[in-house]
Amino acid sequence: MENTYNFRKSTDTFLRATKVIPTGIYGHQTPALLVPGSFPYYTAKASGCRYQDIDGNELIDYICSYGPMVLGYNNPEVEAAAQAQRELFDCASHPGEVMVRLAERLVELIPAADWAAFAKNGSDVTSWALQVAREHTKRRKVLMVQDTYHGAHPWSTPGHGGLIHEDRAHLHYFTWNDTDSFFKLIEKYKGDIAAVIMTPFHHPTYYASQMPAPGWWATIEKTCREQGIILVLDDVRASFRLHIGGSNEYFGFKPDLICFCKALANGHPLSACCGTNELKLAAARVYFSGTYWYSAVPMAASLATLDILERTDAVAHMFKIGGMLMDGLEDLAESHGLQFKRSGPPSMPFPHFTNEDNFMRQQVFCSEVTKRGSLFHPHHNWFMSAAHSEKDIEETLKHADAAFKIVKNEFGS
Amino acid sequence: MENTYNFRKSTDTFLRATKVIPTGIYGHQTPALLVPGSFPYYTAKASGCRYQDIDGNELIDYICSYGPMVLGYNNPEVEAAAQAQRELFDCASHPGEVMVRLAERLVELIPAADWAAFAKNGSDVTSWALQVAREHTKRRKVLMVQDTYHGAHPWSTPGHGGLIHEDRAHLHYFTWNDTDSFFKLIEKYKGDIAAVIMTPFHHPTYYASQMPAPGWWATIEKTCREQGIILVLDDVRASFRLHIGGSNEYFGFKPDLICFCKALANGHPLSACCGTNELKLAAARVYFSGTYWYSAVPMAASLATLDILERTDAVAHMFKIGGMLMDGLEDLAESHGLQFKRSGPPSMPFPHFTNEDNFMRQQVFCSEVTKRGSLFHPHHNWFMSAAHSEKDIEETLKHADAAFKIVKNEFGS
Repeated sequence: MENTYNFRKSTDTFLRATKVIPTGIYGHQTPALLVPGSFPYYTAKASGCRYQDIDGNELIDYICSYGPMVLGYNNPEVEAAAQAQRELFDCASHPGEVMVRLAERLVELIPAADWAAFAKNGSDVTSWALQVAREHTKRRKVLMVQDTYHGAHPWSTPGHGGLIHEDRAHLHYFTWNDTDSFFKLIEKYKGDIAAVIMTPFHHPTYYASQMPAPGWWATIEKTCREQGIILVLDDVRASFRLHIGGSNEYFGFKPDLICFCKALANGHPLSACCGTNELKLAAARVYFSGTYWYSAVPMAASLATLDILERTDAVAHMFKIGGMLMDGLEDLAESHGLQFKRSGPPSMPFPHFTNEDNFMRQQVFCSEVTKRGSLFHPHHNWFMSAAHSEKDIEETLKHADAAFKIVKNEFGS
Repeated sequence: MENTYNFRKSTDTFLRATKVIPTGIYGHQTPALLVPGSFPYYTAKASGCRYQDIDGNELIDYICSYGPMVLGYNNPEVEAAAQAQRELFDCASHPGEVMVRLAERLVELIPAADWAAFAKNGSDVTSWALQVAREHTKRRKVLMVQDTYHGAHPWSTPGHGGLIHEDRAHLHYFTWNDTDSFFKLIEKYKGDIAAVIMTPFHHPTYYASQMPAPGWWATIEKTCREQGIILVLDDVRASFRLHIGGSNEYFGFKPDLICFCKALANGHPLSACCGTNELKLAAARVYFSGTYWYSAVPMAASLATLDILERTDAVAHMFKIGGMLMDGLEDLAESHGLQFKRSGPPSMPFPHFTNEDNFMRQQVFCSEVTKRGSLFHPHHNWFMSAAHSEKDIEETLKHADAAFKIVKNEFGS
């Protein structure tokens, strides 16, 4: 019999964790979003696109820490820049000049940005962006796409615990790529809509990703301009994997505010909100603060990350290598008589079995690939990085071949 | 004439910043909270209790990065622990076992804690704690002390921009040390109060700090128990400067939830919420997540920080050295015929002129001390650290002597 990974230490450590941490591992890294027992839960060490879990299993990582890892774990150039700053200072009583340089760099790199402000999490910047939009427009309503994650704050959390009615009093939901549902809300709340907040493409958990239909972004942008609505792009997850200048550049539109996080500093804790000069006064009027938000090391790491992303055209590499993985998986699936197709962009793909909507084949497939050495998430979009090579993809396709065989045996088609 | 510091590069860099960052420096580090022109705005390097600003001025730091720096900048033992973890991994697709160890350590160290959950900012944990309280009690109302900062989220922000009515629909305010104002709210909202959230002592910006009056905490605790209200201690700012086991141990009461941040990891980005077993199920039910919340380096840094704090009895040192500073300042002020008295605990003192309520003497005094080499904040409580020595205090008292003379000349008393 084939020798696949086991995750005993991960399971044991998780049980130990549940004694002192509610749910053991909470949030997006919870085993509950994976397939319990079939995935590693704890990292031991990581380098490039590979990591070792605490059972000593080595895995090629297609989750990339859910986005932040875009240049490979422990990228030498990014870490050298971080270390140089660290030897001077990190978290102090005043920021460093590096904060100004990073803002200047983003303004130069992001065509839609006239300014930048920094925080730690995606939630910090998406929530603040809505406040800035409300301050600027003096309106209350916010329109967003159903089943979109914009962070863990009460107005957006996918959880149900601890919410009160008022948390979402002025949030209203339309359907991705459905102009009728969008215009219905525009008409209904005319004159009181502060913001429309959207991700550049639709990447809900537990669903296939959806790219924008032709004309979708043009419709959104035109309507926002006509109605004086602030268009907020939540680029937290997709930024620097579609276009170095913001994902809106890839799709050809201009938002008023853009939220960045994840790939911004290759794993160093940093998020940013960029905006246009028209919004700058409102931004200045909305209090924005956090203990570690001025820390200099993540900013130095971000400058290095952006330089490498730009210099190496990392987006093109991720498209190429992600496309290669998708081609390979689709071909393999077909050779096994299985219906497995890509969704989303090649740099953030989420392929799935098109003849099921319960993710049962998907769970078996991703578990079996993972147990052979390539981390595939069954319910959440994957991430490619600049550190993935053709050799990695070839190795992963071998894992996938064995896993498709098991799916075929178990499900028949 | 005496040669004092100038801050030309800070001012120039700040002007450059205003072009690409709303307000240049936002939040609690904004020059607007200091005295514009009389303080440094940018750090160049830092070590121990001292830092150099970008004009090359050297300062003894009594702000301590507004709390995080509790063992001195670049503490060798903390940084060695961080570096050892960093060489393995930091932000990955799964947490490290270090997350479990840190939770176990906090449960061991904090008598009121049966569990811990980690995030990045103080706001992350104070907001989540209220959700947990609402989930547990199935009630809506939250009582808090007027003029208290519990973070930058809309329910608590000191700013006015971008808020809507619903942000504070169920927040109600009582006065510190005023049992009548507290009981009035308890009676008025009986049966619908989810939580009372409070700092261990009252440290509002632009006011003297206030310690709890005799019986104050006993009254709060007893009332919460009787009414089934969750008592949330916001120990974000004060934690590990009053008692190693949580500031409630210093004052002798037991909260249901405690929020930690600041000194928790000596400047590495980390916050935590600890709670009792009674609240664990509710905590598990409230979604809690952020991109970098599982990062291993700040957790390793925190373990080292807590070890040093405990082993060296750092709290006692901060009390001693802070007391020495307060004694020295009060004596000097008296020798100049000035009325300048301490408020707050010695480890987080906020001394002030008792014959003014407009902070004019305070601004001149703190500016003149800062221009001589000791950073004193005119409007916000100060922080002592384990890295401050008697020699540092002696040097600072010389700066203060010269500054008191100027205040005396300018104001007469």
